[in-house]
Amino acid sequence: MGGVNTGASTAERAPKQDRSRATRQRLLEAAVACLAEHGWTGSTVAVVAERAGVSRGAAQHHFPTREDLFTAAVEYVAEERSTALRALFPQGAADDRRAVVSALVDLYTGPLFRAALHLWVAASNEDQLRPRVTELEARVGRETHRIAVDLLAADESHPGTRETVQGLLDMARGLGLANLLTDDKARRERVVTQWAALLDEVLDSAP
Amino acid sequence: MGGVNTGASTAERAPKQDRSRATRQRLLEAAVACLAEHGWTGSTVAVVAERAGVSRGAAQHHFPTREDLFTAAVEYVAEERSTALRALFPQGAADDRRAVVSALVDLYTGPLFRAALHLWVAASNEDQLRPRVTELEARVGRETHRIAVDLLAADESHPGTRETVQGLLDMARGLGLANLLTDDKARRERVVTQWAALLDEVLDSAP
Repeated sequence: MGGVNTGASTAERAPKQDRSRATRQRLLEAAVACLAEHGWTGSTVAVVAERAGVSRGAAQHHFPTREDLFTAAVEYVAEERSTALRALFPQGAADDRRAVVSALVDLYTGPLFRAALHLWVAASNEDQLRPRVTELEARVGRETHRIAVDLLAADESHPGTRETVQGLLDMARGLGLANLLTDDKARRERVVTQWAALLDEVLDSAP
Repeated sequence: MGGVNTGASTAERAPKQDRSRATRQRLLEAAVACLAEHGWTGSTVAVVAERAGVSRGAAQHHFPTREDLFTAAVEYVAEERSTALRALFPQGAADDRRAVVSALVDLYTGPLFRAALHLWVAASNEDQLRPRVTELEARVGRETHRIAVDLLAADESHPGTRETVQGLLDMARGLGLANLLTDDKARRERVVTQWAALLDEVLDSAP
């Protein structure tokens, strides 16, 4: 990508690689949307390929198994969302903790969380899926924790601070769950306001 | 049950009612276990009837539809757990908030939460199930909130206290979700310890 042009064959290859990347990306985005809307049972490689406007063969070339496609999809979208979250607070350590808590909680509402939840729940009953999803969740969880610590300017060398941040992310996940069947936005905003205030006190009063 | 015996017909009816109640209870318990182990897709009235050792016809007499059986089952077990939780702290307002937070969080680990989660996630994609589960969750959620307020001796007339307790229950739900694929007990206990300490400060320092 963007290297020195060493002749016609590279010039031809580059657009082909771009197309391949674009196809892959369309498949990943379609997979998350499909999972969020139809759940694990209704999500197959064929359904996703059709939704992405990609042939079944091309989809299977990129993702040999259903597990490959859907775990890659949730990871891809989670990375996109992490990048977007960091971009929201370019200064890093934030002076507005209410905004940071609100943005963290937003990670757990919307299509990505719905998709991840379907994958998670399916994995709890399917031996083939469980190790893949367990490993994925651990990785995404660690990254989200790192972002939260940075954006909240939390000093994890203080005893208890690590668990305070973890509990906050557990709360965010629980708020996401509460939003699954009904629009829980009004209540969620009140909880976010209250806990952001508590967090502000706790993180700044650490010895 | 336990009334004055008004003759042979009542004496005969009572054991029959007892049997019917016992059958119903076996079905409800089998339904929750089945949902927790096999998820919504693997849970049918027939599978539950077999597990409970009840004829298919008897099961359908008690619960005409699959939705009837599984929503009743989750509600029944949730009520059992609420009663057990109150019994753990017979004095009501507790002096040991760590123990109360821990017991509240325990509501969201184990088979009942797994079963409820499967039902919840299935309801998000199934129009027939959604209104039933939404209504059930609201009812169970209100009752759990009431118990939490009582056991924590939280004074909801103080601004923010209601949201503090709500956030705690959201956290408990999120901790349950984190426990779905891996045994998260060690981390959970550390989070419970930290948040119980925060809660202690917050609830007692309310003006």
